[in-house]
Amino acid sequence: MNFAAVKHITKSAMAYAYDENKLHLYLQTARNDVKKVKVIAGDPFDYDKIGNEYFWKPRIRGFLEMKKLYSNRYLDYWFIEIESPSKRTKYAFILEDEEKKYFYGCRNFQEITPVFNLFNPLDYFNYPEIAKEDLIDSPAWVKNTVWYQIFPERFAREGAEGNYLPWNSVQEGITNHHLFGGNLAGIKAKLPYLADLGITGIYLTPIFEAYSAHKYDTIDYFKIDPQFGTEDDLRELVKACHSMGIRIILDAVFNHCGWFHPFFQDVIKNKKASPYWDCFYIEDENFIDFPVSEKGLPMVPENHRLKFRTFAKTPMMPKLNTANPLLEDYLLKVAKYWIEKCDIDGWRLDVSNEVSHSFWRKFRKVVRDAKKDCYIVGENWDDANPWLKGDQFDAVMNYELAYPLWRFFTKEIDGEEFSYQINDLLVKYQKNVSPFMYNLLDSHDTMRMLRRVGDNKDILKLAFVFLFTFTGSPAIYYGDEIGLSGGGDPDCRRCMIWDEREQDLDLYNFFKNIIRLRKENPDFASVDITWLHTEDNFLVYRKEKTIVIVNNSDKVSDYSFNETLEDSETKETAKKFTVKPYGYRILKVVN
Amino acid sequence: MNFAAVKHITKSAMAYAYDENKLHLYLQTARNDVKKVKVIAGDPFDYDKIGNEYFWKPRIRGFLEMKKLYSNRYLDYWFIEIESPSKRTKYAFILEDEEKKYFYGCRNFQEITPVFNLFNPLDYFNYPEIAKEDLIDSPAWVKNTVWYQIFPERFAREGAEGNYLPWNSVQEGITNHHLFGGNLAGIKAKLPYLADLGITGIYLTPIFEAYSAHKYDTIDYFKIDPQFGTEDDLRELVKACHSMGIRIILDAVFNHCGWFHPFFQDVIKNKKASPYWDCFYIEDENFIDFPVSEKGLPMVPENHRLKFRTFAKTPMMPKLNTANPLLEDYLLKVAKYWIEKCDIDGWRLDVSNEVSHSFWRKFRKVVRDAKKDCYIVGENWDDANPWLKGDQFDAVMNYELAYPLWRFFTKEIDGEEFSYQINDLLVKYQKNVSPFMYNLLDSHDTMRMLRRVGDNKDILKLAFVFLFTFTGSPAIYYGDEIGLSGGGDPDCRRCMIWDEREQDLDLYNFFKNIIRLRKENPDFASVDITWLHTEDNFLVYRKEKTIVIVNNSDKVSDYSFNETLEDSETKETAKKFTVKPYGYRILKVVN
Repeated sequence: MNFAAVKHITKSAMAYAYDENKLHLYLQTARNDVKKVKVIAGDPFDYDKIGNEYFWKPRIRGFLEMKKLYSNRYLDYWFIEIESPSKRTKYAFILEDEEKKYFYGCRNFQEITPVFNLFNPLDYFNYPEIAKEDLIDSPAWVKNTVWYQIFPERFAREGAEGNYLPWNSVQEGITNHHLFGGNLAGIKAKLPYLADLGITGIYLTPIFEAYSAHKYDTIDYFKIDPQFGTEDDLRELVKACHSMGIRIILDAVFNHCGWFHPFFQDVIKNKKASPYWDCFYIEDENFIDFPVSEKGLPMVPENHRLKFRTFAKTPMMPKLNTANPLLEDYLLKVAKYWIEKCDIDGWRLDVSNEVSHSFWRKFRKVVRDAKKDCYIVGENWDDANPWLKGDQFDAVMNYELAYPLWRFFTKEIDGEEFSYQINDLLVKYQKNVSPFMYNLLDSHDTMRMLRRVGDNKDILKLAFVFLFTFTGSPAIYYGDEIGLSGGGDPDCRRCMIWDEREQDLDLYNFFKNIIRLRKENPDFASVDITWLHTEDNFLVYRKEKTIVIVNNSDKVSDYSFNETLEDSETKETAKKFTVKPYGYRILKVVN
Repeated sequence: MNFAAVKHITKSAMAYAYDENKLHLYLQTARNDVKKVKVIAGDPFDYDKIGNEYFWKPRIRGFLEMKKLYSNRYLDYWFIEIESPSKRTKYAFILEDEEKKYFYGCRNFQEITPVFNLFNPLDYFNYPEIAKEDLIDSPAWVKNTVWYQIFPERFAREGAEGNYLPWNSVQEGITNHHLFGGNLAGIKAKLPYLADLGITGIYLTPIFEAYSAHKYDTIDYFKIDPQFGTEDDLRELVKACHSMGIRIILDAVFNHCGWFHPFFQDVIKNKKASPYWDCFYIEDENFIDFPVSEKGLPMVPENHRLKFRTFAKTPMMPKLNTANPLLEDYLLKVAKYWIEKCDIDGWRLDVSNEVSHSFWRKFRKVVRDAKKDCYIVGENWDDANPWLKGDQFDAVMNYELAYPLWRFFTKEIDGEEFSYQINDLLVKYQKNVSPFMYNLLDSHDTMRMLRRVGDNKDILKLAFVFLFTFTGSPAIYYGDEIGLSGGGDPDCRRCMIWDEREQDLDLYNFFKNIIRLRKENPDFASVDITWLHTEDNFLVYRKEKTIVIVNNSDKVSDYSFNETLEDSETKETAKKFTVKPYGYRILKVVN
C-alpha cells in the first residue's frame, strides 16, 4: 500500500458537518491502490463496562463501506456520509488491499492483526461537536439562481443626458475612458428582456460615485454615481426586479477606495494630522513623491515604487486598512445601508482575498443581521476554502471552475485531464458549499468566453451546457447570450448590442432554452457527477437521471447506452445517439 | 516520483504568515523520494512588459532551496521561510528527482521541459495577503512560563473551618466526594514554596461555586466557592502571585453548567416557560424522566437515555447552548468579570472542542479587549488546528504531545516511532503557535505520569527532561515534583504532601534544577529539533547549541560527538558521554 499517499484531515473539507446530524468524510489514497475502505465511528463517550473496566464501543464498527467517489491521475477519493446522532464523533478508517488490512487513524497506520485493539479512542480522529451556529447557512434561493452580470456603463442607456458617445460607436479599441452613458434606468428598461431570457439574479459591477468608467475607484460609497442615477433609481430597479422574481446584488469594493475619496484626499492634504491617516497603508508623510496633474490626478512614472499600498500597482486605488476602527465602522455602515435603503439581495466582494478574515467575519454578521438571506460572494480566484467555512462568505466567483473549462474548450487539456480537474474541485469544496458557488466562464475581468474559443459559437454553447449542468449557480456575462465578443479588460466591456439585426438570435434561443431546462430539471444542479466517457475531446457524464454528451471536436460521434434515454430538446428516445461536431445532447433516463 | 504523496495546502499549517513580512511554506513528499525542492514566488502583480504583452516576473525564481526539515516513516516535510515584502505572494515548487524536474502548483504536476512556461500565475498557489489583524498575537510571556496546575480542593488548606477530613487521610480509594478543605488561602500560603521551585504560572481548576469537589458543575459563575474563599481571597492571591512574578489562569467551564445552576433549576421547574429553556439542549418538556433524590439530585438508572444534552453522559452537567443570546451575554460577562475584578492572566477552556467556534471568537474579543495579554488555552485532546488560527485560542493543553511521550516512556513505541510522532506534531502546528502550547504529561484528567511509568522516578525525570527541552510552556501537575502518584481520575487528585519527610526531595531538586536550566538556556524553548539518534530507547537530539541525551533503558550507554560539549549540570566537558540506565545528559556546545 502506498501509505505516503493516504491522507485525511479532520475538520477540513475532508471532514465536515453537512447538517445538524450528518458528517461527511473523505479519504485520499493512491489511485487504484486500495481495494476497500470501511469506517469505524461513534460517540467518544459510548462505553461498555466489563467488570471494573471501560471499553469504548463505537456505534459504527466497520460495517459501513466508503464509496470511491472521484479520482484524479494519482489519487482516489473515498467518501461516506455518516449519521452523528449525539453530535460528537470519533472515527477511523480500515483500509484493505489484496493482502492486508490496516487501521488508519490520527496517529498513522497499524496493521490489523488478531491482537490489535481496534477500539482505542486515542488513535481516532475526532469531530468533537456539530454546533448548529457553525454550520453553513447560505441562502437557499441561490442554488436555483441563474445570474446575469452587468457592467452598468455599457449595458443600456435610458434618458441619460450628458456628453456621452453614441451607443456602441466604439467596438475595437474600446477603453475604460470611453463613456456611453449606461445607467440604472437603462437596466430597468431592459428587465423584460432579461425576464424573457429567464435569468433570476443580477450582479451589478460598482454603481457608487467613482472617477472611472468601471467605478472601482469609489469616491462616495453612500451615493449612486450621477451617471447611473440616484438612490431612488436603485430602489426602483430593485423593486422592479423583485416583482419579476429577480434578485440583485451589488459590488462591495472594500479592499481599496478611489484616489479621489475624501478620506484619501484628506490624507494627501493633512498627512499624519488627518484622522484618516491610519485608514491607509502609508510609509511616511512624503508619500506623494510624484507629479500630480492639474485635475489632481497622480502622474506616476513607470517603475516608480509607491510609498502607499494600492490595489495591484495602481495609485488610483489606495488600499484600505479595514483594521482601522473608523474605517471598519464606515464600511460596515455601507454594507448595511444599501440593504436597508434599497433592499438589495447580496454583495459581491471585490478583491476579497486581499482583505482580512477578521473584517469579513464582522461584515457577514452585519449583513446577515440586516437581511437574513443576503448572499455574500467573494472575488477569490484560487482555492477559497479558508473563506468558506460558514463564518465569512457563502461562495466565491468560481474561477477554479472556469480554468479547466477554459483549457478543455481551447483543447489545452483533454477530456481525461478535464475530468480530473473537475473531480479535484468537487472534492475541494464541501457538498454544502458547491451548490452556492457563482459559476462563470467570463466576466469584466477576463477575455470573453466567445473570443477565448476562437469566436466559435458552437463551442461557446458547449461550455455553457457544462456550466448549466454543473452544481452551483451559473452566470452569464451581459451579451454572451447574443454573441458579444471581445478580448481581456477593457475589450470585454463593449456596449451591449440591442439592435436585433446584430444580435445572434440562435444563440439567444440556446441560452433561453438551457435556462429553461435547468429550471425544469433539478438533476442539473445536483452536486455529484459520474463520468461515463472522458477520452479525447468527447465527454459523457451523468447527473442523477440526466446524461450529457459534449462533443468538443470536429467529428461526428455516437454513443450507446444500456438504457433508453430521451433527448430533452428533440424528445427523441433511443439507446444510441449521434452527436454532430461541436454538438451536445442532454438526455434523460426514460422512466 | 511518488506524485500521490506530494501535498501542499495553502493557507493552512503548510502555508501561513509567520509575521507581517514572512511566509512559512511546507511541502510533503514521500520519504526519500525527492532529491531537491526549490521555490518560485513573487507578488502576483509584478509584471514585465515586453512589446504589448505582459509577463509575470516573480521575485524568487527557483534559486531558493527548501530544507528537508522533518520526516516520518512515510513522508518527508520540506520547509522554507520566505519574505513577502508586498504582503501578496504567489508561489510554486520545483521538485527534482534523479532524472527529471517537475513543476508543482495549485493545478498539479507538469514536467519541466524546454517549452514549458514556468511563470503562468494561474498555476500557482496564492497567499493573497498578510493581514496584520489576522496574525497570531499570543501573549509573549507564555513562551517563558513554567506552569503549575493546582486542583484547589487538594492542594493546601489554610484556616479553613468546616467538616473536612484530616489532610491526606485518604490515599488509595480517594473519590471526588471526599473533602479535605483545600482553599485559596492555602495556595497563597504556599506561594513561597512555588517560587522556590521556580514556577511562573499557575493554572487553577474551577473555583466558582459548584456542587462537587472538582467544581466542574458550576452553580454560580460570579462567586468563588465558599469552601475556597471569597472574591477578596482570589484578588489577594492574584496580587501575591503577581508580586512574585507568577501569572495565574482560571478554568472557564462554559460547555456545561451544573445541575444546580439556577438556569437549569428554573428549567426543571418551569419547563418551556422558563426564559432559560433555550440555554440548554432539551428534547421535550418531559426531560426529567428519572427519579430525583430528596436533596434534588438526579438518580438516573444505568443505560437510561437522557432527553437533554450533557457533558459526556452525566446529568450533573447539562450542556449549555452558547448560541442563545442571553446565555452568550452571561458567559461573556463572566469572562470579563474575573479579569476586571481580580486581574487574572488567562482562561483555560474546559471541553473547548465541544463549544462552537463562533462562541470562542466572541470570547476571544471580549477577553483580549479586557486584558491585552490574556492567555487563552483550550482543552482539546486532538489536532486543534481549526482553533489555532489567531481568531480563537492561543494554545491548547497539548495532549497530542503527551501521547507520544506516554507511549515512548512506557516502551509502547521505540525512539524512531517517537521521533516521527514528534516530527508530525511540529509540522502540524504553525511555528508561531507551538511556543505557546500548554505542554503536559499529566493532569487532573489523566493517570499521574509517575504511575504511568510504573512509579519509576528516573523515568519520570526523563519525561520531564523532554518536556522542558521542547518548544511550548511546560506544566507540572501539583505534586509531580515531590513524587505524588496515583491512577486516573479520581486517584490522580490526592492531597498534596506537605510533610517533607514524605516528599521526595531528590525529585524536588531535579524539578528545581530543570526549571532553572530552562530559564537560563533559551535553546530549550526553541521550536526546531534535530534528531541525532533515535534507535531503540536511546534518544539524542539537538536544540540550537544544546544536545540532550535520554536513555530510556536499563543499560549504560555512551555517545560520542565531533565537538566538545559541556554537561549543563556537572560542568564536565568532553566529546564522549556515558549515560547511566534511565539517565540523561543536557549538554551544551562549547564556544
